[in-house]
Amino acid sequence: MFFRIEHKDENSGARTGEIQTAHGKIETPIFMPVGTAGAVKALTQAHLHEIQAQIILGNTYHLFLRPGIEIIKQFGGLHQFAGWNKPILTDSGGFQIFSIKENTRVTEEGVRFKSHIDGSMFFLKPEDAVDIQNVYNSDIQMVLDYFAGYPATLEADRKALDITHLWAERARKRFLETNKDNAQFAIIQGGLHTDLREESLSVLSKMDFEGYAVGGLSVGESREDFERIVTFIVPKMLENKPRYLMGSGTPMEILLAVEKGIDMFDCVMPTRNARNGCLFTTYGKLSVKNERYKTDMQPPDPECSCYTCRNFSRAYLRHLYISREINASILNSIHNIHFYLDFMSKIRYAIRLNKFTEFKTKFLNDFGKGV
Amino acid sequence: MFFRIEHKDENSGARTGEIQTAHGKIETPIFMPVGTAGAVKALTQAHLHEIQAQIILGNTYHLFLRPGIEIIKQFGGLHQFAGWNKPILTDSGGFQIFSIKENTRVTEEGVRFKSHIDGSMFFLKPEDAVDIQNVYNSDIQMVLDYFAGYPATLEADRKALDITHLWAERARKRFLETNKDNAQFAIIQGGLHTDLREESLSVLSKMDFEGYAVGGLSVGESREDFERIVTFIVPKMLENKPRYLMGSGTPMEILLAVEKGIDMFDCVMPTRNARNGCLFTTYGKLSVKNERYKTDMQPPDPECSCYTCRNFSRAYLRHLYISREINASILNSIHNIHFYLDFMSKIRYAIRLNKFTEFKTKFLNDFGKGV
Repeated sequence: MFFRIEHKDENSGARTGEIQTAHGKIETPIFMPVGTAGAVKALTQAHLHEIQAQIILGNTYHLFLRPGIEIIKQFGGLHQFAGWNKPILTDSGGFQIFSIKENTRVTEEGVRFKSHIDGSMFFLKPEDAVDIQNVYNSDIQMVLDYFAGYPATLEADRKALDITHLWAERARKRFLETNKDNAQFAIIQGGLHTDLREESLSVLSKMDFEGYAVGGLSVGESREDFERIVTFIVPKMLENKPRYLMGSGTPMEILLAVEKGIDMFDCVMPTRNARNGCLFTTYGKLSVKNERYKTDMQPPDPECSCYTCRNFSRAYLRHLYISREINASILNSIHNIHFYLDFMSKIRYAIRLNKFTEFKTKFLNDFGKGV
Repeated sequence: MFFRIEHKDENSGARTGEIQTAHGKIETPIFMPVGTAGAVKALTQAHLHEIQAQIILGNTYHLFLRPGIEIIKQFGGLHQFAGWNKPILTDSGGFQIFSIKENTRVTEEGVRFKSHIDGSMFFLKPEDAVDIQNVYNSDIQMVLDYFAGYPATLEADRKALDITHLWAERARKRFLETNKDNAQFAIIQGGLHTDLREESLSVLSKMDFEGYAVGGLSVGESREDFERIVTFIVPKMLENKPRYLMGSGTPMEILLAVEKGIDMFDCVMPTRNARNGCLFTTYGKLSVKNERYKTDMQPPDPECSCYTCRNFSRAYLRHLYISREINASILNSIHNIHFYLDFMSKIRYAIRLNKFTEFKTKFLNDFGKGV
């Protein structure tokens, strides 16, 4: 059994569960650190093990362009190539391809796009995205979807949805014919239109994927729109399949989505913010470059037990950042990913005690206090 | 006792020994990774412990400008500020100051220089360099010396030498009055002139420092000049004091200098090369960006037991480098520093067996084979 629900919170839609893959189990709700090019930026695989990352993300599009599938095939898959023996989810790259509007042309057949690396042209069909992810041996594959962009007209969202559904059907067919070991997730689109979202959910649910994702959110819409769509669609998603909210990642967004029943998250925010000197702490965000930390002997987050917080002060981290030392990115990334994974661990614990709502309130209260 | 010789190789000038500091022992001959700003670039302190670094280097000048001595004083020293509990040697910064010729003005009193960070002007006396390093609580302090540059006229080398000696005397006086816990090393200058080198050795030896360094080499001179000066001066240096060759660091230079009796080394080469994709291996240097490693599944150095070599292939490291991932710098630096420390460990082992010369021949033979 690929997914089983362990416990449902009695007072909200939150649930804990377990996903079983060929490379081990994942406890949900889970946060997946993003390793676009087969490496989570500034963290070695040893760091990720130490922080107890259970699964990381790769990007089909980026890895397809570089190093290319032939090399990954030669290694027997992305796990061997990247030296990572725990589960890997690969995003199809639809989001990346459609984020670069120019030189991207979609037909029912597939998408023609230009490499952001060397400008060469490629044509990608939904079946190709499956074949490529088969080569990666990703534990969880995402289908190629068509993201209309944000903001988008109703017409554009409508067109994107039809193609997304057509492609999902073809991708599912190819996957079932070629892959017995892994899982494949569909992506629900529909922009900010509840009717389109519902239609997408209905169409894709019939195709019986191993899991379902919500795409096209956290792309610039208002918090109200984000909350409105999550609140509308998540509780309607199939109960016994893992639910994945793609690309969302502020603590607030995660708490809201878990409350409605989301099981999986990914976001570049903790690693990107780390490289920009922004740390997540129990009492809110801390910008380590700030002059006020120049002589501050406290750890970044006094409540945190990560390697960085156990060994280094805000003053030292500020010094590294101001001095443009690579070590600033490393130590900050260790902290932020630890913070996120610890946050998810506390969420799971609270759900098991039927106290998710209390946890959410307390977390947001503390987080709002300010460092 | 600060330093004791453990064993002298019967067939060369090489020797093993032990330096005792307030932060632990150091086995010599030793290589000291360079952590200019209080951080060895791309390596956390945990990495350094794992690689078994015994001592790291800091730079008095850089740390004086940023973060400034007040902050380090507040922490009680550089060890606490940087979260490093093993020995630290700090270079005085003379080399850095005199490498920036413009806006640097030397008198017998001291040196006036311009900050490379914000252009502000400072005046540094040899006593100041002691006081600053006292604040750092460096286990080994270096005196402020005057490096004439390379190439230099005889007249310039002569003038620099006189000032270096005058400053050494004043620095020694200040150190003996203010510091009971640490060690202070003098720096022998004299450029490529054996007579000046001998004079410098003679003058400084009378001041009874805890150790002696050779400065002003590996600054662009020919290999013949390097070898000529090392061969001339090192065997004449005080037998029972540690001997430190500053800034030299190709494996060839280290082998030559150990053979003559040098005990300590530092060099930015292994970390800088790592960031540029150049790895040291048993069979020579390996430029990981090279197209030929694109599909190479071997570890960087099949003879190496470091984290990088145990877990990653040349193809993966090439991919990280080409993709400009920070992880390339991290994994390459882990390997190169491990390679250097392992190299020194093998040197010590060979000396104890009176087989340094055989080791040198074999190492250079292997290193010359090419990857």
